[in-house]
Amino acid sequence: MELNRAKGTRDFLPEEKILRQEIEDTLKKVFEVYGFSPAETPILERYETLASKYAGGEEILKETFKLKDQGDRDLGLRYDLTVPLARVVAMNPTLKMPFRRYQIGVVFRDGPLKTGRYREFVQCDVDVVGSSSMKQDAELLMLTADAFKALNLNGKIKVNNRKILDALLEAASVPEDKRNAVILSIDKLEKLGLETVKKELQEKGIFTETIDNICKWISLKGTNDQKIKELKKILLNKQGLQEMEELLSYTPDVIFDISLARGLSYYTGTIFEVYAENSPITSSLAAGGRYDNMIGLFRGSGTVPAVGISFGLDTIMDVLMAKKKEVKKSVTQVFVLPIKTFPEAWKIAQELRNANINTEIDMLDRNVSKNFDYANAIGIPYVVVVGTEEVKKKKIKVKDMGSGKETFMTVKDFIKKVNQ
Amino acid sequence: MELNRAKGTRDFLPEEKILRQEIEDTLKKVFEVYGFSPAETPILERYETLASKYAGGEEILKETFKLKDQGDRDLGLRYDLTVPLARVVAMNPTLKMPFRRYQIGVVFRDGPLKTGRYREFVQCDVDVVGSSSMKQDAELLMLTADAFKALNLNGKIKVNNRKILDALLEAASVPEDKRNAVILSIDKLEKLGLETVKKELQEKGIFTETIDNICKWISLKGTNDQKIKELKKILLNKQGLQEMEELLSYTPDVIFDISLARGLSYYTGTIFEVYAENSPITSSLAAGGRYDNMIGLFRGSGTVPAVGISFGLDTIMDVLMAKKKEVKKSVTQVFVLPIKTFPEAWKIAQELRNANINTEIDMLDRNVSKNFDYANAIGIPYVVVVGTEEVKKKKIKVKDMGSGKETFMTVKDFIKKVNQ
Repeated sequence: MELNRAKGTRDFLPEEKILRQEIEDTLKKVFEVYGFSPAETPILERYETLASKYAGGEEILKETFKLKDQGDRDLGLRYDLTVPLARVVAMNPTLKMPFRRYQIGVVFRDGPLKTGRYREFVQCDVDVVGSSSMKQDAELLMLTADAFKALNLNGKIKVNNRKILDALLEAASVPEDKRNAVILSIDKLEKLGLETVKKELQEKGIFTETIDNICKWISLKGTNDQKIKELKKILLNKQGLQEMEELLSYTPDVIFDISLARGLSYYTGTIFEVYAENSPITSSLAAGGRYDNMIGLFRGSGTVPAVGISFGLDTIMDVLMAKKKEVKKSVTQVFVLPIKTFPEAWKIAQELRNANINTEIDMLDRNVSKNFDYANAIGIPYVVVVGTEEVKKKKIKVKDMGSGKETFMTVKDFIKKVNQ
Repeated sequence: MELNRAKGTRDFLPEEKILRQEIEDTLKKVFEVYGFSPAETPILERYETLASKYAGGEEILKETFKLKDQGDRDLGLRYDLTVPLARVVAMNPTLKMPFRRYQIGVVFRDGPLKTGRYREFVQCDVDVVGSSSMKQDAELLMLTADAFKALNLNGKIKVNNRKILDALLEAASVPEDKRNAVILSIDKLEKLGLETVKKELQEKGIFTETIDNICKWISLKGTNDQKIKELKKILLNKQGLQEMEELLSYTPDVIFDISLARGLSYYTGTIFEVYAENSPITSSLAAGGRYDNMIGLFRGSGTVPAVGISFGLDTIMDVLMAKKKEVKKSVTQVFVLPIKTFPEAWKIAQELRNANINTEIDMLDRNVSKNFDYANAIGIPYVVVVGTEEVKKKKIKVKDMGSGKETFMTVKDFIKKVNQ
């Protein structure tokens, strides 16, 4: 049998998982400080839910893993955490509004196999349901800025508004039924470049003059204010621009990027993406936006405004790994090495554990040098040697693996030293 | 469209997820204190890996979700975290031994729909690869006892050894090729009762006299020592009994239960299960054992001993929920209520957040009583009122939602109060 992972998936050994865990903990802390509480939905969803016309749209459905249970029911693996959130809110009409939750979980996309793209990846989502205020969009952008600060990353935040794109396509005379298709093409601008997008638009039956106008307008240069001023001259429907002006009044440190489109069809207002500055990784690290229609349509009545952002744990990890010089291979702080003293050494190990010190003890009866090699290889900072001499004197020999220094001391003093 | 979850799955709103998160954090802390580091493997595995004859066996394969990717490759959703661990170790021959890792992740079983059984559930696994010492099995049992203590649960730990069961079946003259089938029937004893198991064994073609002997022997009563003494008279092959004696010498507080069998086919030595005492939930909360053959067979050469235990997050949660009187609906500590003072109140909210206090601020411009109702309904302990009077005096009005007491104070003093 050939041993391998499923294509497009990854294993994380401790040297990567420890960092991954740290990123997750950092994000959780920022989410909670902003008044969000955790929630969880299943990975398996009814296929009907994922395929609903109110959900992610055709493009993403093509990449959805489909399966059946023993009862022949059609199921799918969730492709994001937003559609399941909409289902939960629609199913729980007594939920207190605003509903502020975060969720960290695996999502799946059966897309083409490319470097840096995974078929199974973790999204860390923060959403507010029940608020249509632009202040809410601004709060999420501030949370995002704080999250990247906490991760020690320079995140460049780009914002746009679907209403601006709609008005722009209206001004360029794109027929209403083709606007979504055009937005999907614009979304690929960063990846494919202007010429390829132009060609794709031609293939979609858009007139050359229209394409030229769209491309000119989405490429407008200048400050945020200059772009808004220019667009005011072009667009008839100015609601998106007004929303953008309000948003920018609360969060001046973001970049208004008219070409930002976002692939998912459910967005209705503000959209945003975050990129790492000075990194070889060019994919977005976080993205999101406002989707005011989805939940109401799922529920079948009324409108339920919602806005959210999703942090990509895998991409953030890739960016941080690319920066990192050293990796931690273990969270263990102490390795206890008994030399013909297992029962006594075991008691010492339990004493350290009771003092909340992460402790491993040799179970293999290996010789001293092999044990030191092991502790060194996985990066355990202290080795505690317990020989018959140490037992007699009620002390331990502590080797600091960083400095190489050896010290005789009592277990109590050692606990103080580690926990200080 | 009918809105629903996939059958056999659950949503966790904050009132459940907060507790779920606490259980996970408690287990993580105990795992790390015992010198285990985190790792992660994907949910999707090649179907070939899961279906390997060295893996979980026929019974579990029947309950495995199968699917295909766009490249027509056969995939499966993992049914446990042990088989993927074996794959990872077999694929990484340079891994330092012992390899001590924990993993917390969702697993899937497409089993019959029953209360308390889920098709998607979280396992929290701790395994040591590379040690065949009974001390290692004992260490895992001590970790288990400490984990249940930390969870404030009375866990009753039952142990047995597959070698004892094998010797017992040998002594009862069960042909070698039928022993696995008999063990699978014994595994159902707790659930189905003695009579049903007897009938099942008859259907499997086991002689009545043999069945009577098996049932008599696995039902032996008495202390651990008495059971071992009795079995010494019955069994020819005594290796399992010797291992059990050694194990019990390190961990006297466990129950040697000869009828314990464990359904999975990969176990080779010690097996264990943990139950909650005084709880309406009768399923096991944790289970595991020694599987010395799987990894070597996956790798294709040599033997790689391994032992592990898996904590069932969902069952533990069900037990704790059944005990709980109150649930936390939010992790938010403070709700900031601006009265025509949004810009000032926003600054105060950010000040609280910078001091690591979980803070929400009203974004809906709701009236005072609606805001208090909301804070009360989701259980936020403090409401901070910021009116024009407060802004003028550079103070805030703090309402302690528990006692109902209102106090004027500075933001600094409030931060001290919350963080004390």
